[in-house]
Amino acid sequence: MPTKIILDCDPGHDDAVALLLAWGNPDIELVGVTTVVGNQTIDKVTRNALSVARVAGIVGVPFARGAERPLVRPIETAGAIHGESGLDGPVLPEPTIALDARPAAQFIVDTVMASEPGEITLVPTGGLTNIALAARLEPRIIPRVKEVVLMGGGVHVGNWSATSEFNIVIDPEAAAIVFGAGWPVTMIGLDVTHQALATDEVVAAIAAVGTAPARFVGELMEFFAHAYRDTQGFDHPPVHDPVAVAYLIDRSLVRTVAAPIEIERRGEFTLGMTVVDLRAAAPDDCVTRVGLDLDADRFWALVVDALTRIGDPER
Amino acid sequence: MPTKIILDCDPGHDDAVALLLAWGNPDIELVGVTTVVGNQTIDKVTRNALSVARVAGIVGVPFARGAERPLVRPIETAGAIHGESGLDGPVLPEPTIALDARPAAQFIVDTVMASEPGEITLVPTGGLTNIALAARLEPRIIPRVKEVVLMGGGVHVGNWSATSEFNIVIDPEAAAIVFGAGWPVTMIGLDVTHQALATDEVVAAIAAVGTAPARFVGELMEFFAHAYRDTQGFDHPPVHDPVAVAYLIDRSLVRTVAAPIEIERRGEFTLGMTVVDLRAAAPDDCVTRVGLDLDADRFWALVVDALTRIGDPER
Amino acid sequence: MPTKIILDCDPGHDDAVALLLAWGNPDIELVGVTTVVGNQTIDKVTRNALSVARVAGIVGVPFARGAERPLVRPIETAGAIHGESGLDGPVLPEPTIALDARPAAQFIVDTVMASEPGEITLVPTGGLTNIALAARLEPRIIPRVKEVVLMGGGVHVGNWSATSEFNIVIDPEAAAIVFGAGWPVTMIGLDVTHQALATDEVVAAIAAVGTAPARFVGELMEFFAHAYRDTQGFDHPPVHDPVAVAYLIDRSLVRTVAAPIEIERRGEFTLGMTVVDLRAAAPDDCVTRVGLDLDADRFWALVVDALTRIGDPER
Amino acid sequence: MPTKIILDCDPGHDDAVALLLAWGNPDIELVGVTTVVGNQTIDKVTRNALSVARVAGIVGVPFARGAERPLVRPIETAGAIHGESGLDGPVLPEPTIALDARPAAQFIVDTVMASEPGEITLVPTGGLTNIALAARLEPRIIPRVKEVVLMGGGVHVGNWSATSEFNIVIDPEAAAIVFGAGWPVTMIGLDVTHQALATDEVVAAIAAVGTAPARFVGELMEFFAHAYRDTQGFDHPPVHDPVAVAYLIDRSLVRTVAAPIEIERRGEFTLGMTVVDLRAAAPDDCVTRVGLDLDADRFWALVVDALTRIGDPER
Repeated sequence: MPTKIILDCDPGHDDAVALLLAWGNPDIELVGVTTVVGNQTIDKVTRNALSVARVAGIVGVPFARGAERPLVRPIETAGAIHGESGLDGPVLPEPTIALDARPAAQFIVDTVMASEPGEITLVPTGGLTNIALAARLEPRIIPRVKEVVLMGGGVHVGNWSATSEFNIVIDPEAAAIVFGAGWPVTMIGLDVTHQALATDEVVAAIAAVGTAPARFVGELMEFFAHAYRDTQGFDHPPVHDPVAVAYLIDRSLVRTVAAPIEIERRGEFTLGMTVVDLRAAAPDDCVTRVGLDLDADRFWALVVDALTRIGDPER
Repeated sequence: MPTKIILDCDPGHDDAVALLLAWGNPDIELVGVTTVVGNQTIDKVTRNALSVARVAGIVGVPFARGAERPLVRPIETAGAIHGESGLDGPVLPEPTIALDARPAAQFIVDTVMASEPGEITLVPTGGLTNIALAARLEPRIIPRVKEVVLMGGGVHVGNWSATSEFNIVIDPEAAAIVFGAGWPVTMIGLDVTHQALATDEVVAAIAAVGTAPARFVGELMEFFAHAYRDTQGFDHPPVHDPVAVAYLIDRSLVRTVAAPIEIERRGEFTLGMTVVDLRAAAPDDCVTRVGLDLDADRFWALVVDALTRIGDPER
Repeated sequence: MPTKIILDCDPGHDDAVALLLAWGNPDIELVGVTTVVGNQTIDKVTRNALSVARVAGIVGVPFARGAERPLVRPIETAGAIHGESGLDGPVLPEPTIALDARPAAQFIVDTVMASEPGEITLVPTGGLTNIALAARLEPRIIPRVKEVVLMGGGVHVGNWSATSEFNIVIDPEAAAIVFGAGWPVTMIGLDVTHQALATDEVVAAIAAVGTAPARFVGELMEFFAHAYRDTQGFDHPPVHDPVAVAYLIDRSLVRTVAAPIEIERRGEFTLGMTVVDLRAAAPDDCVTRVGLDLDADRFWALVVDALTRIGDPER
Repeated sequence: MPTKIILDCDPGHDDAVALLLAWGNPDIELVGVTTVVGNQTIDKVTRNALSVARVAGIVGVPFARGAERPLVRPIETAGAIHGESGLDGPVLPEPTIALDARPAAQFIVDTVMASEPGEITLVPTGGLTNIALAARLEPRIIPRVKEVVLMGGGVHVGNWSATSEFNIVIDPEAAAIVFGAGWPVTMIGLDVTHQALATDEVVAAIAAVGTAPARFVGELMEFFAHAYRDTQGFDHPPVHDPVAVAYLIDRSLVRTVAAPIEIERRGEFTLGMTVVDLRAAAPDDCVTRVGLDLDADRFWALVVDALTRIGDPER
């Protein structure tokens, strides 16, 4: 039986690939897509999500627009990485899907409450504002959610500061809520995703699929490669978000360990750090896990496979 | 035309008086009552609100249960002030009203969105968790709310620490959201409410009303007097929350000034302080006001008048 | 017997008046003057102290140069209040005194250790860097110092932010050390010194002394009046620092109460606040006091008296 | 020409080994030893330093007692690691050396100012209180000190919390002063010293020296092994402090890289973290370096060699 997920994202180049992977892989059932301010404003990332849906031929999946700003802190976006649109590179087609009328947090609450306990997995690949709002709006979802598998944070490395990753640092209060809610959380952070590099071989393999969605991904990767080279000195861009989806398809792709994780909300140099305590084995009641290593080849094979299955959808 | 309010409260002795004042005064229309963790757990304060509704004979007003915990911080309650039940003193009758099915934040969003712009005033007399959640869940309520008049904070005095007041310190992140949302906020803090003392004359005037609700208030005040004497050295207890309601009935009761207000979320000795900048006249675009003085006699006259109008409702 | 003080200052217009008052009043014996970065750089305030010494005809008093920067934080000066030189207004004469070779903190340690226990009072009127360094360099001075009477902080008002006063906010770590060292500390803060206004009557009374030092003070006050009018909207400038000296001459000038005082070092909006807990009577072992009110007329009479006694010294 | 060092320490088992290495190695000239509160109280660590001096036969080296407490924070010691005495295990002989009369910070200032620029290297192996005090008491030492090579901190690991190491966390303000002073700082942190394990082979090699000092070290290691096993789950104890000395004997022992380093003084979960930014090459004007790897075999060979050279001193 496929894993039912709500993908909560801020497309975002790597979010787009995550969405394609979730849609194209038969072991994932996409029960909803929600958007959240992050890589760009909520208007832009929401439109981007709908454009990607059209490219991928996604049908029958509700899309809900979420938070326009972090819980407490001012908005911070990542234009230097994702461009003016949040998805610079390819031409973005006009969306054809209409948004769900509900705010994302309410959509998440309704979906989880209408499902069986343990049925829904939440997969946030942006800031955690929507997920935090949902957990506080209706705490009964917490024991009903199967687990939260998120892209964000880092144990030994940051990207927005020496210690902190963008998705966490833009809304550390939301992150504290999500990591501490009590549901199982697996953190796919930079330690893992900096191994998910779109190398020349990866780009060639995607190009070889030969479809319009694959070309779309190729154009995304081209822009992304330039952005990461110019801003962070990467030879090849790390494609973070689909790793969280891939982990749900095949847990052997990512080495994880149970560990207590705290979110630093007060530090001067460490704001938004995911403080992972690896000094000793986690206590038995620890519900948080952290990813440490990736089997990159098999990860990329899943992406190529999903693109192959998606083929060339009618637009 | 009466002022339409949603009273967001955590009864709480003074919350109970606020509810009676709002129900009994003809210039206030109670369009909803929401509860929030604070003086006691959400279960207790919600039951208390419903018990008070029965005492007061409140009918036709929806009651919605709200947040069971603050946004980010752990729960802190005020048993030393309000007792084990949150409303110690009188016998609390069994509630007869059924709760609205929606969480408080959603109820607030729905009510505001279903009303005209500028129609609804929010009157929080507890922690600001529900109001903050509503503002972030559906930001379109922010320009639609007429204003927020809240009991909380203090300029020159605290009660939970040297600088900070209970309603703010228990959820400073929520307070930061509410004070900074952009809607007009009037803060009725301890500078004002420490002038709303239930003196012997006040207690006698309430007793003279001679009804069951008045006796109920008398019993609340008796417990409250002991609690404030024992814990904070007050000769007579300050009855904070109804001042926020009274201000909406007659603005001349409270002297207020426009001033920038920030919520301290990081301080070691100042956590939860409402930092009010009174050094210079507020800028023209300042939407926050702070109360500084109370006309206590006329305030208490309003409370007695409301009790008189409520009379002895059928239970 | 006169009170033996070390004046630790950063002249600074009001520091200059404090120095004149300490020198001119027979109940004060100036056993040393130390300087500290604050109103201006250490080079400037040290030269200013020596220039004022020449104006006042101070002889036989060692002057020692102190900290060039706060303990941990970057340097912040107050050019907008004290001008480019730190003592703008009058012509500043060339100093004729040579500095003591020791750093201020070491001078303080040596002086206190060479005196009888309880003989020396420290009077800081700038940031507390020197005093903190001395206390940590040689903790045996702590029980030997009679008391610390300092100008700084505020209970209900700030000048560098809504909550914080300049002398504390520029080195809050030093302030935490000094307030918490264990010696008796009396804080003469803005609540008091905002009552020490150089009104027209005050300025006239000083002018009437008719000496060169009095004219010097008059020129200082003229500049100071403009600076306070332009930057903080005062009709007449508050002359903070001499109040700490005046309090040692006549304790009845300032109403003080014992109260716990903490220094906020972490707050976002309250950094450098002197958190004074006035909610209840201080515990018996409380060694900190805070000034709340000033008898301004008698304060200014002391200043005029000191100038009269100083007369027209040979330069 | 040997490297002239002041060893600033809080013996402490590994401090004792550092002292023996510094005394026994011909490339190090010990120009002074200063003590600082840390592993135990200042009384205990000072006595321990003098006892170790007697064991090692140290003569002609001034010892000065330093700070009895951190700059701002309360005292925190490490009895669980170093025992009640701070140097539990062997019998500690009565000291025979008299202490220098000056506080450590003043001794450091005097020694540096009396030496040529670039002559003195500071080697702190405890909290950084003394060094910070010296730098602030007399800033002219900063350009005169050759460099600071310290044991403390960690990039990817902590011991007193998930992120922080004992020497830094006990006085983060002092650490911020020392790391930011402007002199060259090399940080030998836990990433390096957790490779300096006293394995069975190491213990056997030390025992084989066959002298009284070697037996003394053996007894220290035995206690230390138990303490680290019980408190932190180490199979063999990491002997941190001598690595800083060894690095000065042979820089090829430790792989270091230049990197900006900040000290977190405000974090809730990261207090005292040495935030090392390894994301990109350090800027050209970066004066801080961080150690990352140790050649453990050659490090231990230096320790054994020093013990061999020390032989069996007359007591």
